[in-house]
Amino acid sequence: MVVVTVVGLGSMGYGMAQALLRAGADVYGCDVDAGRVERLVREGGKQAPLAEAAGKSDILVSVVLNAGQTETVLFGQDGAADALRKGAVIVSCATVPPDFARDMAARAEAQGLHCLDAPISGGSVKAAEGQLSIMASGTPSAFEAASPALDAMAATVHRLGDEAGMGSAMKSVNQLLAGVHIAAMGEALSFAVTQGLDLRRVVDVISVSAGTSWMFENRAPHVVDADYTPRSAVNIWPKDLGIVAQIAERAGLPVPVTRAALGQFRAAAEAGDGDTDDAAVTRVYTRAAGIKLPGDA
Amino acid sequence: MVVVTVVGLGSMGYGMAQALLRAGADVYGCDVDAGRVERLVREGGKQAPLAEAAGKSDILVSVVLNAGQTETVLFGQDGAADALRKGAVIVSCATVPPDFARDMAARAEAQGLHCLDAPISGGSVKAAEGQLSIMASGTPSAFEAASPALDAMAATVHRLGDEAGMGSAMKSVNQLLAGVHIAAMGEALSFAVTQGLDLRRVVDVISVSAGTSWMFENRAPHVVDADYTPRSAVNIWPKDLGIVAQIAERAGLPVPVTRAALGQFRAAAEAGDGDTDDAAVTRVYTRAAGIKLPGDA
Repeated sequence: MVVVTVVGLGSMGYGMAQALLRAGADVYGCDVDAGRVERLVREGGKQAPLAEAAGKSDILVSVVLNAGQTETVLFGQDGAADALRKGAVIVSCATVPPDFARDMAARAEAQGLHCLDAPISGGSVKAAEGQLSIMASGTPSAFEAASPALDAMAATVHRLGDEAGMGSAMKSVNQLLAGVHIAAMGEALSFAVTQGLDLRRVVDVISVSAGTSWMFENRAPHVVDADYTPRSAVNIWPKDLGIVAQIAERAGLPVPVTRAALGQFRAAAEAGDGDTDDAAVTRVYTRAAGIKLPGDA
Repeated sequence: MVVVTVVGLGSMGYGMAQALLRAGADVYGCDVDAGRVERLVREGGKQAPLAEAAGKSDILVSVVLNAGQTETVLFGQDGAADALRKGAVIVSCATVPPDFARDMAARAEAQGLHCLDAPISGGSVKAAEGQLSIMASGTPSAFEAASPALDAMAATVHRLGDEAGMGSAMKSVNQLLAGVHIAAMGEALSFAVTQGLDLRRVVDVISVSAGTSWMFENRAPHVVDADYTPRSAVNIWPKDLGIVAQIAERAGLPVPVTRAALGQFRAAAEAGDGDTDDAAVTRVYTRAAGIKLPGDA
């Protein structure tokens, strides 16, 4: 029986741990929130300090928020890299700069570990169903070592090359587009309000027109229904579009559309909507224009 | 037999005239380019000066570039409005500000004419197939009078209300999104180049991920194939996103994402790519960053 440690039992990580349990793996859950770990134990998971869990695992899946947390989990005090047995594999799922992913893999490999740069996409529902999309790169040995976990967690694994970094690069391309499309959705719906259009009709018409996007079809209904339950939070975007802007600047590439969207998500977070569904970026527009959305008093 | 005049035999108007001919209408073609009119005559169309053609028509379909040209066609010297018989209908298909559409309809109605605010979407191929999407608003009488032409030209007619202006407003919402998505596509592919990603792989992965859009799936392959044959030209976007920015400003709505995209299309036009396929907006990025796209020497 394959032994897997999942670090980070947030909305994505918890679902991935459930999918691993369903696939028959022995799953240790680690999280700063003890309640999440206890919940996983009630569902059949195991509990141990990170280093102890890692020492017993074939695969360590890290599903933390960013590069800083990934660094701490792997290479911090009592971190996983020193505890994992030689030949074990790290599957790193946070959205991180490609340079960080390359450096992480080099350090892990120097310790006799495999490392897969494996950002995830699909949302918490698909995570729990084991139907994620994973944008992965790493050595063939890393893919082979990780395959029991990948099979359990993902509907699609995009293999993007033998080197760590390419997975993170593709994820950043996706986040650039996804973030811009959400901001554009908010801009377009606000614009529609100023023109007296019915937003339900706008969603119906645009969804079958050339202006549609995956994010428009997914997020615009949240605005129409005034339902800002956070399926994906505003706070994701200052982080992920910030990474895009930072990488692009290093490469000498101007990204004005990304920067405009980034500014709107930062404004949404500053207005107190950081933990709200990211469709709430629309409110940045309507507040500025003094217009009303569905649900506004 | 219904008699229709089509004014503006460009890539959209010519196809619409063909679709009307196929549907059995008597079709007059008017265009400043005599060659296009002659070509339509060889396919069964008729030729006459605008006022004479309008005087014989039940329906006048105006498929010119913008509000200025629409104004000239309808209300300029020897224009169509004075020549059309009472009860005839104007179907105005240019992308224009909603205020212009409302004013146009009011003036036409004051002359005893019907007027449909009916911007089109779908591209030249669907125009020729009679499979356009039309975002239309106007009085029930205007819809009824226009129906033989709508039936011949469109797969879908979105009925957006009894007042002119709503069709144009919806079209502008669509153009806001479509234009932003094309610029974002260019930004994302350029970003991918800086990260060493293979663009064909990027198109494959993004097309099945949350970052996809109708425009990404339609335009990104043009960049990958280095095929900038103009199916829809860069020059459309300074015009259409300019209308969005202008309307939004009047409504007190900031549209920073639209403005960022508008800036990139203006830069593309200024660099000499105005008549090129709009996917060429990508070159604005790669020139700035000194990187290469497929097809670049």
